[in-house]
Amino acid sequence: MDTVAIVGVGLIGGSFGLALRKAGFGGRIIGVSSEATVQAALAVGAIDQAAALPDAASRADLIYLAQPIGRILDTLHHLDPHLRPGALVTDVGSTKEMIVAQAANSIRRAQFLGGHPMAGKERRGVGEADADLFAGRTYILTPAEPHELDTPPAQEFREWLRRIGAKPFVLDAGAHDRIVSYTSHLAQLSSTALGATVAEHVAEDELAISGPGLHDSTRLALSSYDLWRDILATNTAAIDRALSDYIQKLEFIRQNLRTRELQQEFARAGKLAGRLRGAE
Amino acid sequence: MDTVAIVGVGLIGGSFGLALRKAGFGGRIIGVSSEATVQAALAVGAIDQAAALPDAASRADLIYLAQPIGRILDTLHHLDPHLRPGALVTDVGSTKEMIVAQAANSIRRAQFLGGHPMAGKERRGVGEADADLFAGRTYILTPAEPHELDTPPAQEFREWLRRIGAKPFVLDAGAHDRIVSYTSHLAQLSSTALGATVAEHVAEDELAISGPGLHDSTRLALSSYDLWRDILATNTAAIDRALSDYIQKLEFIRQNLRTRELQQEFARAGKLAGRLRGAE
Repeated sequence: MDTVAIVGVGLIGGSFGLALRKAGFGGRIIGVSSEATVQAALAVGAIDQAAALPDAASRADLIYLAQPIGRILDTLHHLDPHLRPGALVTDVGSTKEMIVAQAANSIRRAQFLGGHPMAGKERRGVGEADADLFAGRTYILTPAEPHELDTPPAQEFREWLRRIGAKPFVLDAGAHDRIVSYTSHLAQLSSTALGATVAEHVAEDELAISGPGLHDSTRLALSSYDLWRDILATNTAAIDRALSDYIQKLEFIRQNLRTRELQQEFARAGKLAGRLRGAE
Repeated sequence: MDTVAIVGVGLIGGSFGLALRKAGFGGRIIGVSSEATVQAALAVGAIDQAAALPDAASRADLIYLAQPIGRILDTLHHLDPHLRPGALVTDVGSTKEMIVAQAANSIRRAQFLGGHPMAGKERRGVGEADADLFAGRTYILTPAEPHELDTPPAQEFREWLRRIGAKPFVLDAGAHDRIVSYTSHLAQLSSTALGATVAEHVAEDELAISGPGLHDSTRLALSSYDLWRDILATNTAAIDRALSDYIQKLEFIRQNLRTRELQQEFARAGKLAGRLRGAE
């Protein structure tokens, strides 16, 4: 792997460039982004040079699509004629079924392997890029067939993922989208709904009457709709289902505020929260 | 104020003792708790000596009820015969209407002033006690009538609250219970419901597929049911209402996953989350 093209040099794309460098990658890193972003990315050392997509794609061994989901879908649609045979195209979209399907339809001259790094920050942009963003984080790969992981370019990409400290985790795209509808998308919407409900029913000067609990539970509510619009649009059915399950659980809790049934719910939720923290 | 009796020397009661000492209180601090707790409280310096409730109450100028809500209600029921005239009884219960009503019925020989420090930790017990627990935190006071704040013992108590760094905030008990049903109780139940829903629909080995968002949003789910049973039982109507509003909001979100209505909800929730972080 001599040349990497990072398409969309924001928080994730920029962090990938910095992480590759920190892990010892000595080849070229080409950035494809707006002029302002490219300048910022060059300044922090996330990329070596900028190019337009056709030029970058025609020179790269690895094309790393780190755009918003809608833009990834669009790039996949136009990318194929520019790819060199033997290249690997991967992406970082946080929903996978639609992207994998679009790639299967569009990418013919090179290999596609879907990805989703479970890493992020509240703030976006290459200014927030961090060479350690992926360290210790799960990095999901969603091959359409298992053997796609074992091609030479895929093996080399997986090796670089390990070198930047990510923990690769192989999953079917559909299973991925179902799981994240609970572990990520539901968590987001529960926080957004909490923030919106509190905003509607509690006056501004009454907000002093809140503790660290509301603070923690509304951190996700700081997320930008711009980021979530594409996620909600590309995983609607699974999110609808997760929300229905959540609403049903809240209804059950509401009807059992004074019964011992709640003890069971607290125990179940506490066990999960402990597990997420590495306890048992 | 020469003698303080802390009834229930756990995290809050123990922290109050340590905070008084740190702020320069030179009088006596008597603890009323189980033998094991009393020993632990003496060891960390949260109290000077232990006594049974009748003895402690008959000697104290301030009786600080820092038990769980159900125990506070019970203590109020039995406390009056032991009180000395001129004393002030206050409590830390996180719901206020039932406690204030019980005190109005039971406390006749001394003054009662309800309180609720908006401070806490995940872990309980005097071993977690912290002289700075109240520093910078809102400390709600719920007088039945405004003039109750201006009696000499109430003025002296408020002065000590300021010395330990708490920010007193005066509120009607009913308004308090309505507000915390959104800012505290709903936040707790949204987290418990999220944890329980994820636990039911995501397999253990799939939990690797989660990011920092789920981690934050399930921190409250670590809370013990033992603590919440009394809260849910003494603020049921307000919590029922807050849960209904939340469920309605989630239903609206579910029906608008692909419409621009969500942009408004994200904006509203983000503004609230920003405000909680002092951004407005």
